[in-house]
Amino acid sequence: MKRYERFADEIAELIRNGVLAPGGRIPSVRQASRQYGISPSTVFQAYYLLEDRGLIVARSRSGYYVREQAQRVLHEPRMTPSRQEASDVSVSELAFSVLDSLQDTATVPFGSAFPSPDLFPLARLARSMAKGLRGMSGDDVLKDMTAGDADLRRQIVLRYTLKGMPLPPDELVITSGAMEALNLGLQCVTSPGDLVAIESPAFYASLQILERLKLRAVEIPVHPREGIDLAVLADSLARLPIKACWFMSHLQNPLGASLDQEKKRELYTLIKRHQVPLIEDDAYAELHFSTSPPKPVKQFDDEGLVIHCGSFSKSLAPGYRVGWVAGGRFAERISRLKLMTTISPSVPAQAAIADYLQHGGYDRHLRQLRHALETQQGQMLAAASRCFPDETRATRPAGGYFLWFEFPERVDSLRLFRMALEQGISVAPGPIFSATRGFRHCLRLSYGHPWTPRSEAAMKTLGELVDAF
Amino acid sequence: MKRYERFADEIAELIRNGVLAPGGRIPSVRQASRQYGISPSTVFQAYYLLEDRGLIVARSRSGYYVREQAQRVLHEPRMTPSRQEASDVSVSELAFSVLDSLQDTATVPFGSAFPSPDLFPLARLARSMAKGLRGMSGDDVLKDMTAGDADLRRQIVLRYTLKGMPLPPDELVITSGAMEALNLGLQCVTSPGDLVAIESPAFYASLQILERLKLRAVEIPVHPREGIDLAVLADSLARLPIKACWFMSHLQNPLGASLDQEKKRELYTLIKRHQVPLIEDDAYAELHFSTSPPKPVKQFDDEGLVIHCGSFSKSLAPGYRVGWVAGGRFAERISRLKLMTTISPSVPAQAAIADYLQHGGYDRHLRQLRHALETQQGQMLAAASRCFPDETRATRPAGGYFLWFEFPERVDSLRLFRMALEQGISVAPGPIFSATRGFRHCLRLSYGHPWTPRSEAAMKTLGELVDAF
Repeated sequence: MKRYERFADEIAELIRNGVLAPGGRIPSVRQASRQYGISPSTVFQAYYLLEDRGLIVARSRSGYYVREQAQRVLHEPRMTPSRQEASDVSVSELAFSVLDSLQDTATVPFGSAFPSPDLFPLARLARSMAKGLRGMSGDDVLKDMTAGDADLRRQIVLRYTLKGMPLPPDELVITSGAMEALNLGLQCVTSPGDLVAIESPAFYASLQILERLKLRAVEIPVHPREGIDLAVLADSLARLPIKACWFMSHLQNPLGASLDQEKKRELYTLIKRHQVPLIEDDAYAELHFSTSPPKPVKQFDDEGLVIHCGSFSKSLAPGYRVGWVAGGRFAERISRLKLMTTISPSVPAQAAIADYLQHGGYDRHLRQLRHALETQQGQMLAAASRCFPDETRATRPAGGYFLWFEFPERVDSLRLFRMALEQGISVAPGPIFSATRGFRHCLRLSYGHPWTPRSEAAMKTLGELVDAF
Repeated sequence: MKRYERFADEIAELIRNGVLAPGGRIPSVRQASRQYGISPSTVFQAYYLLEDRGLIVARSRSGYYVREQAQRVLHEPRMTPSRQEASDVSVSELAFSVLDSLQDTATVPFGSAFPSPDLFPLARLARSMAKGLRGMSGDDVLKDMTAGDADLRRQIVLRYTLKGMPLPPDELVITSGAMEALNLGLQCVTSPGDLVAIESPAFYASLQILERLKLRAVEIPVHPREGIDLAVLADSLARLPIKACWFMSHLQNPLGASLDQEKKRELYTLIKRHQVPLIEDDAYAELHFSTSPPKPVKQFDDEGLVIHCGSFSKSLAPGYRVGWVAGGRFAERISRLKLMTTISPSVPAQAAIADYLQHGGYDRHLRQLRHALETQQGQMLAAASRCFPDETRATRPAGGYFLWFEFPERVDSLRLFRMALEQGISVAPGPIFSATRGFRHCLRLSYGHPWTPRSEAAMKTLGELVDAF
């Protein structure tokens, strides 16, 4: 990363933290140059970049200002207490109707689970694919099918190491996306009828998987910014025979909440005390807006209790279907279970990603991706504060590509979902994120696609639909 | 297919049927030309081809003879009655130790589940992959992820149609290999504790999957050539609450047995009467040696009871992990279950296979592959009759790449497996094909790799190890 990029990121962080407030002036070039000990041209380059990212605006003769994302800032949603007793799960049909709504590419994809593939280096990946295939012998094909691509394994282990989390290579199992990783992990540590602690609201696929495996959910409430309520979790672990936890400690889907380091440590201490495995879904690991990459709960895992699941689907290669799991003490069982279910992720896809990680410039791509997402978040928040009613609350996560909106109680997001779809807009209604069909007045919207006049018009339409309740 | 190739296939069929016996003379060029109404040069070309495939030999001045594959022909194995009561299954560890034995590429891969990748058009597929990726937009990537590659779907439906089995496109679900197809199919129609009728001996993965899903096996004996014993099946279906059947009606693994048309019809009538879904594993559909492709039980399926699973892994693209399931009345449930487990097979792999099927010359490749496998079968059988003890029995399947050997009862194939591995030879011992650990004196050997002096030496070593019992 160049000096001016680093400086731009520092300023961006100050804007995010609120140290530099919307509408406020940022240090002049001369001030910044003196204060940070960098050349004026470096400051200029950084400010151009921040302008480009939509974070600041230049006003002629008076300098640079933090962009006013919104005429008014939406309040943070409230934390919803969850009913903590165990629930059978049956949310599938509802979630599928949201997925189905995305099949028509003419639909405005606010309900999508994936960012726009146009944000990814698909052409560069295709070149990596061609190169990977050229170098591959028939023996390699069979060998990589059971063990996984050796280069890819090395690259993933390396990335753990660079984050200060050395990973014994034996712990790593390459999977068909994070979804398979999560499935295998959960199956390894549970039997039908078992209780599993999940978040509330939770990623709908986790509800579907629990439903499929005939597991029962214990919903733990999540604070919209600070993450899971550890006091409630501690109480549940003490009272109930919970067999596994399935959490996202970072950029939780749908809220975007993240636990801080201290809370992550506390969470690990809890599961260790009760010897309950944690399936840590870290699919958004690379999509943080902050300059320093956060570490998962896995960092504390001295007993192999954490099954840490990652993926390239949200950060590099959608549709390649390559993920992984650092399986802790369950790694061998996970690996064998995989041989019985899909045998292996696609070998060419593994080779392509391995080559790209070595030669493609992954970290540069990630920086661009994060900046694009951060800009789009600002655009959606600004549109929301213009178009949605005053009482609307919204999250403002430090990464990812989802916003969570809480409307007045009278708004029924299931009806809203159907009405929006008739207008060609897909959204994700609150109840698909809950085993108990809560969050009926909430909505998850994705800003994962580049912002266009069509997005703007769709927000206006949504606002009108909400107003009608 | 050229005229001479068709003629060669006709002669090959006569050799396989035993109409033309080993050592016997085949029609002279002049005779054949007159009898079949084709030119002498066409006959010559056909005979060269058959010589090349190792089926006939020329003797100077006296014409062409059916090659004597063996000094003596091994007898067919006997049919083993199975204990028909339900069994819990736990064969995994044993099967995994066989898979592990194949990790070392220096090992002679007689235990392998895949043919040699050198028999596949990997370079041509790589070109198809590059082409498929060039034509793919970001929207395509997301769309193909849920619905499957549209071109690939069309190509697969077309192949069903050309076989005289029109398939409603809605029935088709693209999967991560046949293994995922089988898993999803079985999960859709069973719950833990249910009884499932399987073959004895059976593909070991089916035993592993039953074990994983906590299903109980009812083993139905398979005749080494004629396939599953339908009388026993009828009796079991009448007596026991069987919830699903899982059979290979064609080139059954490990025996290579195939049901004839009449028996396939009878099997369908049986499952229809009892309304028990059939999961039909047809992974070796394209590897028949006969000139006319056999049709699966699915051909009779007028009630959507047959879940027909296919794959490109054994016939075209190992490691790409693309298969499919024609799911009958269960198709939608299978499709949704897939979204909850792996979401989708790799999109680039689907695009590559779609392009190859359209432009790559799949049928030409299949003819070459079948000829190579048939030649290799002859070579392994010849070596077996030279190297294995007199009482050894062996199958002689009309396709695929497995032989099943039955040794005298004193031979312990589990010990043989370990001893062979010490000599650098991997084999698949009988008990991994049985829920009740039967077939202890049996062995499955793969002739899926080109025959070399090393193969020859390995057969000799195996013979010596068997002799030592």
